[in-house]
Amino acid sequence: MKKLINDPLLVTDELVEGLVLAHRKKLRKLDDMNVVVRTDVDFSRKTGVVIGGGSGHEPLFLGFVGRGMGDSIAHGDIFTSPSVDVVYEAIKAADGGNGVVLIYGNYMGDILNFDMAQELARAEGMRVETVRVWDDIASAPPEKKDERRGTSADVFVIKIAGAASELGMSFDNVLRAAEKARDQSRSLGVSLSSCTLPAVGKPIFELEKDMMMIGMGVHGEPGIEKTKLLSADETADVIFSRLLDDDLALQAGDEIALLVNGYGATTMMELYIVNRRLHQLFEERGIGIYGNLVGNYCTSQEMAGCSVTMMKLDDELKMLYDQPAESPGLTLF
Amino acid sequence: MKKLINDPLLVTDELVEGLVLAHRKKLRKLDDMNVVVRTDVDFSRKTGVVIGGGSGHEPLFLGFVGRGMGDSIAHGDIFTSPSVDVVYEAIKAADGGNGVVLIYGNYMGDILNFDMAQELARAEGMRVETVRVWDDIASAPPEKKDERRGTSADVFVIKIAGAASELGMSFDNVLRAAEKARDQSRSLGVSLSSCTLPAVGKPIFELEKDMMMIGMGVHGEPGIEKTKLLSADETADVIFSRLLDDDLALQAGDEIALLVNGYGATTMMELYIVNRRLHQLFEERGIGIYGNLVGNYCTSQEMAGCSVTMMKLDDELKMLYDQPAESPGLTLF
Repeated sequence: MKKLINDPLLVTDELVEGLVLAHRKKLRKLDDMNVVVRTDVDFSRKTGVVIGGGSGHEPLFLGFVGRGMGDSIAHGDIFTSPSVDVVYEAIKAADGGNGVVLIYGNYMGDILNFDMAQELARAEGMRVETVRVWDDIASAPPEKKDERRGTSADVFVIKIAGAASELGMSFDNVLRAAEKARDQSRSLGVSLSSCTLPAVGKPIFELEKDMMMIGMGVHGEPGIEKTKLLSADETADVIFSRLLDDDLALQAGDEIALLVNGYGATTMMELYIVNRRLHQLFEERGIGIYGNLVGNYCTSQEMAGCSVTMMKLDDELKMLYDQPAESPGLTLF
Repeated sequence: MKKLINDPLLVTDELVEGLVLAHRKKLRKLDDMNVVVRTDVDFSRKTGVVIGGGSGHEPLFLGFVGRGMGDSIAHGDIFTSPSVDVVYEAIKAADGGNGVVLIYGNYMGDILNFDMAQELARAEGMRVETVRVWDDIASAPPEKKDERRGTSADVFVIKIAGAASELGMSFDNVLRAAEKARDQSRSLGVSLSSCTLPAVGKPIFELEKDMMMIGMGVHGEPGIEKTKLLSADETADVIFSRLLDDDLALQAGDEIALLVNGYGATTMMELYIVNRRLHQLFEERGIGIYGNLVGNYCTSQEMAGCSVTMMKLDDELKMLYDQPAESPGLTLF
């Protein structure tokens, strides 16, 4: 393994320190705990948006705390849920009396710990509701949404919830907007290579030199089809066709936000080439691309590959998407 | 080679198309030419800032066009200077009658083509001056600055020049600010793996499994020392010590902008861990970190490694650094 780290067991602590140092005018870290909280906001004036999950997907989740994004983040070890006390402290830090919306990916470990922390916070009198993100269409059929994994749609759900909260929308409306962003989002990815966990030191799976995997999860969960390496356009075609075949029922005249997300080792060059083809495909169907993000937002260490997320927009989601966001991992005017 | 591309010879054209599609509200591409120009500005009200160079380093240079950054970009093929006519058209596109400052990295191919284009533009009556960026301390001794390669300091020089131009500062002052940003910047990088050019299809060099190279250039130019793989802290120590030994003569009380730049396949996690150690080192010397960027800004395809750039600040550079910037590759409030 060739990684610039120190002690593999200290990776998470040290990376959080390094991030907070880079943004210390606007973020702080709780003592002895990997919880990062905004310092540029008065929590008594907004609904708290608390996000979290395992590390190893940077900038997700850690980098998505800031104005118009998350208010605090509970940061776990690599590919591991944050513990109950970490989530609880993240909730407490972002609760200014108006309640907290919890946003995280739909994984068993996260569900257990976030649910328990939610119960603890409720027992203290805090209002806490949860939005689990389940966007990966490769991981379960449409009728079993709540069995789907949460992947790059986290970015959109956090963006929309953060915008709603920043605008001063009520708790119920922040929660509703976040759920709508989740319900209107679908993702699918392809992997060209494995990733290496610092504490393990070798690739977590092997993929032959001329093969790629469609639908693999961001922790190396099994995909739905192994195929020979496709070109950028062919890859976009496959992803597009599967996304459109899911149950979002996009039609001519609809508008979407489109995210072309890199898994870590994929160059911006490749992502832009995939993006180019997706524009052609959506245009052919008369579907408008209202917002478009291209970059590394939800990574899997140094995995090569990309995922595509589309979120169907209505007037409210467009308005919320257009709000400014300012965070280490995503900044939009 | 596992890359999401189509025809290797069309990579540059297709990636530019994909980028402009993602930002079509604010950027346009010239017909039949890889020049991208801002559409959200009246060039008659500002000095033009024209940037450019080979592709393969995304987001540099292509992603640094926008408010408070470059006004137009001349985009070459991978690791190859844009041709004279491309640079000339980029100059023409950004010249609203107030002249144009050209910013690019100090490489022979770029110098030849940008100089020729500058002559052509001058012959047409345009005012054009050049700032070549030469920040890589591994590539020549301090007394031969103009033999040094231009690397990640491009980011700071473009940021400062773009801010000065956006504020309406005069041509002479934009030029002076850009030169000052260049003169006050020093960089050094380490590489852990090679990169693969799409048209070549195999790594451009080999590096043993347990070795790293200090001072390798972003096109695989020879480094100054091959060493066993160091930890993140040791790597930061080596880079810091060499940067401080160069001729910038930083002293306690000085303030810098610090960029920890990834070469492509290095995770944000690793960059943050390096950043953490650099903060400790600068603090020990009493040198303040006024601004801090951590991320992939000047890459070398999927090379693993990072570079560190420090720019010594005075009041004017601080003011310019604090101006907003909005571009695909760098956005700051």
